[in-house]
Amino acid sequence: MFIDIKLDKNTPVYIQLKDHICELILRGMLRSGEKLPSTRELASILNVSRNTVINAYEFLQEEGFIYMEKGKGAFVSDVKVNFQEKWTVDWSSHINNYAKASEELDIIKHETKWKKGMISFKSIAPDESLFDVEEFKKSFLNRISIEGEKILNYGYAQGYKPLIEYLFKYMSNKGANIEDKDILITNGFTEGFDLILSSLTEKGDKILCENPTHNTAIKIMKLHGLEVVGVDMEDDGVSIDKLKEKLSKNKIKLSYFIPSYHNPTGVVMSVEKRVEVYKALKVYNIPIIEDGFNEELRYSGAHVSPIASLSGEGNSVIYIGSFSKILFPGIRVGWILADKKLINYLESVKRSRNIHTSSLDQAIFYDYLSGGNFEKYIKKARKVYKEKYEFAVECAKKYIPFNKLFGEGGLHIFIELNDIKSREVLEKCYEKGIIFTPGDIFYTDNRGYNTLRLGFSRVSKEDIEKGFKIIGEVIKNKI
Amino acid sequence: MFIDIKLDKNTPVYIQLKDHICELILRGMLRSGEKLPSTRELASILNVSRNTVINAYEFLQEEGFIYMEKGKGAFVSDVKVNFQEKWTVDWSSHINNYAKASEELDIIKHETKWKKGMISFKSIAPDESLFDVEEFKKSFLNRISIEGEKILNYGYAQGYKPLIEYLFKYMSNKGANIEDKDILITNGFTEGFDLILSSLTEKGDKILCENPTHNTAIKIMKLHGLEVVGVDMEDDGVSIDKLKEKLSKNKIKLSYFIPSYHNPTGVVMSVEKRVEVYKALKVYNIPIIEDGFNEELRYSGAHVSPIASLSGEGNSVIYIGSFSKILFPGIRVGWILADKKLINYLESVKRSRNIHTSSLDQAIFYDYLSGGNFEKYIKKARKVYKEKYEFAVECAKKYIPFNKLFGEGGLHIFIELNDIKSREVLEKCYEKGIIFTPGDIFYTDNRGYNTLRLGFSRVSKEDIEKGFKIIGEVIKNKI
Repeated sequence: MFIDIKLDKNTPVYIQLKDHICELILRGMLRSGEKLPSTRELASILNVSRNTVINAYEFLQEEGFIYMEKGKGAFVSDVKVNFQEKWTVDWSSHINNYAKASEELDIIKHETKWKKGMISFKSIAPDESLFDVEEFKKSFLNRISIEGEKILNYGYAQGYKPLIEYLFKYMSNKGANIEDKDILITNGFTEGFDLILSSLTEKGDKILCENPTHNTAIKIMKLHGLEVVGVDMEDDGVSIDKLKEKLSKNKIKLSYFIPSYHNPTGVVMSVEKRVEVYKALKVYNIPIIEDGFNEELRYSGAHVSPIASLSGEGNSVIYIGSFSKILFPGIRVGWILADKKLINYLESVKRSRNIHTSSLDQAIFYDYLSGGNFEKYIKKARKVYKEKYEFAVECAKKYIPFNKLFGEGGLHIFIELNDIKSREVLEKCYEKGIIFTPGDIFYTDNRGYNTLRLGFSRVSKEDIEKGFKIIGEVIKNKI
Repeated sequence: MFIDIKLDKNTPVYIQLKDHICELILRGMLRSGEKLPSTRELASILNVSRNTVINAYEFLQEEGFIYMEKGKGAFVSDVKVNFQEKWTVDWSSHINNYAKASEELDIIKHETKWKKGMISFKSIAPDESLFDVEEFKKSFLNRISIEGEKILNYGYAQGYKPLIEYLFKYMSNKGANIEDKDILITNGFTEGFDLILSSLTEKGDKILCENPTHNTAIKIMKLHGLEVVGVDMEDDGVSIDKLKEKLSKNKIKLSYFIPSYHNPTGVVMSVEKRVEVYKALKVYNIPIIEDGFNEELRYSGAHVSPIASLSGEGNSVIYIGSFSKILFPGIRVGWILADKKLINYLESVKRSRNIHTSSLDQAIFYDYLSGGNFEKYIKKARKVYKEKYEFAVECAKKYIPFNKLFGEGGLHIFIELNDIKSREVLEKCYEKGIIFTPGDIFYTDNRGYNTLRLGFSRVSKEDIEKGFKIIGEVIKNKI
């Protein structure tokens, strides 16, 4: 019985022994009151040191699985394990519509999956090989030495104070007025957007956004039961005429925009349009949620201030920031900059959802940012991504017969084909080892059948060329 | 204008200079086309190295704030910042009932606040001085060296695979059958519970739980619009008679229990009662959410298996685990063990909420746990907390005139007074520098006015004695 134990190399032996005996007891193979072998005996059977067995027995005693009798040895405790009665619940009858919709709209589960050896243009995650792990390590060690074990205990729902201070300055440098504003740290953009919709909308409300727009945002809006009113995009942002038309015809509650390096088109909304959008929404008093997505990845042109900066001391814009498309998305840190009173509510909602964002991650991030590493990193990343972006555009022009190519930067390009279904193109490409994101998932009104998004951040130049060539050939065969 | 810059010691000078010039441009104090001082000139004005100025100018150029003309110098870009139009939104008219309720039920905002110098019995967070920071550091460095920068990029919604494997084994060691089960990593218990209610309930549904129970759970149930049906507690768990009565009189959708070191009473539900509860709920086919809270903090008695173990190969119990009351709550890692099909839905809901829990934190946690550190730590922590627990009980008996004292372990004791309002006691104690948690917040039906919870995990023995003495005196003056 004891000899059955299979030892692995990575776990201390006494823990494996403890776990094994624990299992024997729970399975009823060692019964209440039964005597265990002496530590000496078991050590010799298993060919381990006696100390190993003593350690294992001590833990089993601590955990209430065995008890010791002086001079007599170790015995199995009165662990009651005999009762077991199978009870099967049909969960499908319990799952509500929200969870069902979450699953249905979960593209990771339902879209074409990458297989080993394929070239994937699906991802717009950053290229991790650009991450400066050494500086990250330093920041960890630095924060641990400054904060000590405190940083591993509970923190504040609003966030890690030094990080909040840093971000205030960061936002101020972008031109945002921080008077009477506050910042809430979130688990990335996704949580930020979800918290805002949870707090400001009711089922059936109408929300206005660009069309196409970020597919995760569409998913979250739909999951909140909102009616999504999309406004067509032009080369320099939404069409102002169409925006005004939609505003006059609908009772809109909230609006959502990605003014810089818009996902999926990559369009940067011009300064003039930012002002027009702002003014148009002001007329109807419809607050703006601004997604700062990829704002940092500008490759050319003069600095463009976020819409948040237009409101001055006003409070009509809720800005959601995140570095996740550039830096360390795995640690899930983003933020919301908004009116102080609004943040007060969002903070309570955040607390009721998950108490707070990992203090450790916030502290490391703060240390990394405040040490000036971000500026160094972004310089390097911009250079690499800009080169790749230009190469991707060049390859697209050379190999892919398109109607229109969108995008001024970021980590992807967006292509509109002539009258060809991109999902059919994807099917053929898949056979040839290439995948990409069909553009229809970004549309609010089932259009975009002839569009596709090509993310290049994690694809080598060689593979970009190879992949685009194949995509181009598939399309040519369809014309 | 340039001389105004105030330099601090913690940020690289070129970044401070860049930020300063950026501000001047955004405030319109440096206008489009305006020439900046030469790098040599500015270096001499500011008494910094010329390289510092060159670095700052390079970044400003990168970010589109200035442009360089060969042989002529640096000029301000066409950054359009003139438009600003204050627009004030009355957010209070936009905040929905859910967010309002979140704020109202947020006890951190509305309960008596700790002030410097006070003795606080409010917290049941672990004592961070017990944390083994050195081992934590090692785990970080180890994981970073194994996983590299990959761990800082996006991960899986379900969680970090090695951690999931570890927890499967951990749950199996507790007696849970893992056949056809799966695990979802969450941001602690709070998120786990919220995800489950989000996926399985509708507004107006009835949920059954112990009364009193964990106040955060009550808050989340209420925020989901659920009707909370509480069942009175006895010394060994809920009253089975009352449970059966409530079950026969109500159409219950789900149930929630904290069988071990129940919050707030500290009661451990007996094995016999676990079986009776399980059987009673099986009759009505009402699934059980089991909160594994503090299960690890047993100080005496034989091992008691979780309710999850009673279902065998069945799937009727959803187990929520978290080490947060023992270890590293600041990193927010918990888990749900449940039916595979159910986890599939919960995973999609999790993805729609915040994509995934920090991969870095999960990886460090995994490394720490699998290295056997948890066993070492829990041994130390149990010893310290047990001693404190016994001391707290001793002091309570000595100084506080109570009707009943609850609890067999954990990080707190729960006291029922004779006919005295604990909030009035709190008011007086506050004046004397002592705070604690009034017990009414744990009740589902506005009872418990004469109860209080005393958390001792972060209070020294000296302060426990001092504090309990004062609480006792205040109560005596009220009798």
